[in-house]
Amino acid sequence: MDIEVICTGDEVLTGKIVNSNFAYITQKLEDYGLAARRGVTVGDDREELTRAFRQAGERADVVIVNGGLGPTVDDLSQEIAAAVAGVGLVLNEEWMERMEAFFRRVGRTMPPNNRKQAMLPAGAEVIDNPIGTACGFGVNIGKAVFYFTPGVPRELMRMMEEQLLPRILARAGSKSVIVLKRFHSYGLGESHVDQMLGDLESMVPDGTLKLGFRAHYPQLETKLTVRAADMDEAQRKLAPVIAEVEKRIGNFIVARDGETHEGVIQASMLKRSATLALVEDFTGGQLAARLATVPGMERYFLRGVVTPTEQSKAAAFTLRGVTLEPIPSYEMAEAMAEAVRKQVGCTHGLAVLVGLDKKESQGGNHSGTVCIAISENGNIVARRSRLTGSYDWIRLGAVEMGMDSLRRHLQGLPIKEATDFERKAT
Amino acid sequence: MDIEVICTGDEVLTGKIVNSNFAYITQKLEDYGLAARRGVTVGDDREELTRAFRQAGERADVVIVNGGLGPTVDDLSQEIAAAVAGVGLVLNEEWMERMEAFFRRVGRTMPPNNRKQAMLPAGAEVIDNPIGTACGFGVNIGKAVFYFTPGVPRELMRMMEEQLLPRILARAGSKSVIVLKRFHSYGLGESHVDQMLGDLESMVPDGTLKLGFRAHYPQLETKLTVRAADMDEAQRKLAPVIAEVEKRIGNFIVARDGETHEGVIQASMLKRSATLALVEDFTGGQLAARLATVPGMERYFLRGVVTPTEQSKAAAFTLRGVTLEPIPSYEMAEAMAEAVRKQVGCTHGLAVLVGLDKKESQGGNHSGTVCIAISENGNIVARRSRLTGSYDWIRLGAVEMGMDSLRRHLQGLPIKEATDFERKAT
Repeated sequence: MDIEVICTGDEVLTGKIVNSNFAYITQKLEDYGLAARRGVTVGDDREELTRAFRQAGERADVVIVNGGLGPTVDDLSQEIAAAVAGVGLVLNEEWMERMEAFFRRVGRTMPPNNRKQAMLPAGAEVIDNPIGTACGFGVNIGKAVFYFTPGVPRELMRMMEEQLLPRILARAGSKSVIVLKRFHSYGLGESHVDQMLGDLESMVPDGTLKLGFRAHYPQLETKLTVRAADMDEAQRKLAPVIAEVEKRIGNFIVARDGETHEGVIQASMLKRSATLALVEDFTGGQLAARLATVPGMERYFLRGVVTPTEQSKAAAFTLRGVTLEPIPSYEMAEAMAEAVRKQVGCTHGLAVLVGLDKKESQGGNHSGTVCIAISENGNIVARRSRLTGSYDWIRLGAVEMGMDSLRRHLQGLPIKEATDFERKAT
Repeated sequence: MDIEVICTGDEVLTGKIVNSNFAYITQKLEDYGLAARRGVTVGDDREELTRAFRQAGERADVVIVNGGLGPTVDDLSQEIAAAVAGVGLVLNEEWMERMEAFFRRVGRTMPPNNRKQAMLPAGAEVIDNPIGTACGFGVNIGKAVFYFTPGVPRELMRMMEEQLLPRILARAGSKSVIVLKRFHSYGLGESHVDQMLGDLESMVPDGTLKLGFRAHYPQLETKLTVRAADMDEAQRKLAPVIAEVEKRIGNFIVARDGETHEGVIQASMLKRSATLALVEDFTGGQLAARLATVPGMERYFLRGVVTPTEQSKAAAFTLRGVTLEPIPSYEMAEAMAEAVRKQVGCTHGLAVLVGLDKKESQGGNHSGTVCIAISENGNIVARRSRLTGSYDWIRLGAVEMGMDSLRRHLQGLPIKEATDFERKAT
């Protein structure tokens, strides 16, 4: 099936906003065993929209159009869709009532220009948007069915999941269900995991299992999709594969499906009624910020401290008999993890310290030594590692390694397992 | 002039990476008074690439192709370009030598598959890539000239600025220079600034001045571009307009051109040999992280502290006679700004405190009270405000407002000027 995605709008065409809707749509298609063949981006321009719709109708089977459904005069999707389909625009009474009810509910009068959002090409299928005033719709142009979706990301996402995917899958003649299982890991690169798991597709001999990856440093997402006649069969096919993934890379998995690394840590801390204080330097608050975006974090996260230099570390903590150095030692990280824990009076103290090498390496890259220590009621574990890359890259890597160390400690795993991202551990 | 941008690669087509190169290219074009008419995205697929190149050659004058110049078999740009142009691929000896020299310099032997990167369509113009092995090139297809660029962002950016823009401007028949002036502001929305500055274009009566905006919450970028015969004329035209912008929205400008808000604050602090300690709660480290990404920050940033709850605040600071409450009072923020300053022993203390309302408002939005205080050697200024939106939105807004308050204080401006993003101040 030939699927095309057309993104409309001057803001997207001129790069005022980066087009993350396109990535969302095509990733979602892939998650369900479908694939976009091409994408087109055009502005709010009658001539270009007309050409894009006409050409897509000649070559594609399914076209997803994003944007251009708003109430203002520059939103042209319904008008051009009707013109290219060779039909008129007609008022959809039902959608008009929905919008009026929406405005009544929020205590406002509907502005007259919103009426435009209920004007759809004659014969179009209404596609529900339960959280906005932009009405989705389906219409045939050329040999393709076009689905029009709103530009607001959360409205698009809901329409895509609930309305479009079932329609597109049905059109693909798929009477089957697709189940997606995701693993978020830290510490192994994409090609390494591909090599470790590449043979798993053959565990489902009918060829309905697919293995895929999405790398977003420092995490890697490993995706298993399986196609089956029904949910039971899908789960039956998946279960042994999931078990095998867990066996092979389990220690590196920081979260599963919709979970996040920080959410997993929080759940684990709350389960054991543990409390955390942390100290960081070069990461400058990014470690605290990762943990602190999870709602409810205040139930275990008691304090974060940023101390960039030896002087600022010495001023913040009593570290008797420890030499503070630009390149963090085990001794230093361990003393600081325990010091912040005792100062705050909590069960767990975490120190993530980074010391950069003085000289840049080839190509403008930097290298640094990361030293991480965790004190649980005075019992201390630590790891030390090397990271290379831009400043941002090193910061991201150190934050993730600090979180991974805490997760591993909480889950009773070795915290020192070598990763693909670090240089020789010292 | 009809300009088209073609982005290639399975990773971009499937949404594994969000296509920020496209936004970069089209923004850059706009900065120089040019405009892309459409974008096309295709995977590493011979049939789709062929169709995309052929169609672009029929309708466009200039086509910028991004990606597909790598050494691996899935990189097809040169091959398809040659095929569609109806010429063969020939080895470019000069580029081959450049690559060999590059590998010698880093002490490695060039892998045989890199040779592919020096195979260009016969008659192509080589476009230099001084920082990578992917050779850019220009070739005619149909009625258009195609420019092929590497997918690595920093290589693309350098080639775009130094090589492509001069070529495209010359092709557009422009013998003039274009100068761009940028203002980064906080606190005024796009439509408000548009209304305040919309008449400025008429200050340059020949119509060569353009005003543009790019909103990325919480900041707004205001762009002035002027076209002139030479740099002197451009500066002469711009000077009075810049002065007028500064006069009208100057207090809200946090940075200019390539500066950042955090960089401006750092420069101002260092200039007066000031030092900073800060405390934050709901923003969870994001305030510290913003300031701490600027190289050299350790020369003034002495400590950041995250204390999410009343208990954690009371444990971290001695706040005699102050009642700690979930909704921060002026008294509380002022006491904490001074407490963190005294504890750390620096010239400036900054407190950014956020208290969320208990109940959600319509549409899943939250509201919160932000209270910001700055102590400079015990002299305290403060502001209080209301923010509404998602949790992330409120966090971003509070961080920016905290930074803006510090910048205003350092620049001797009133810190309480009302912004468009806040609800009634209390």
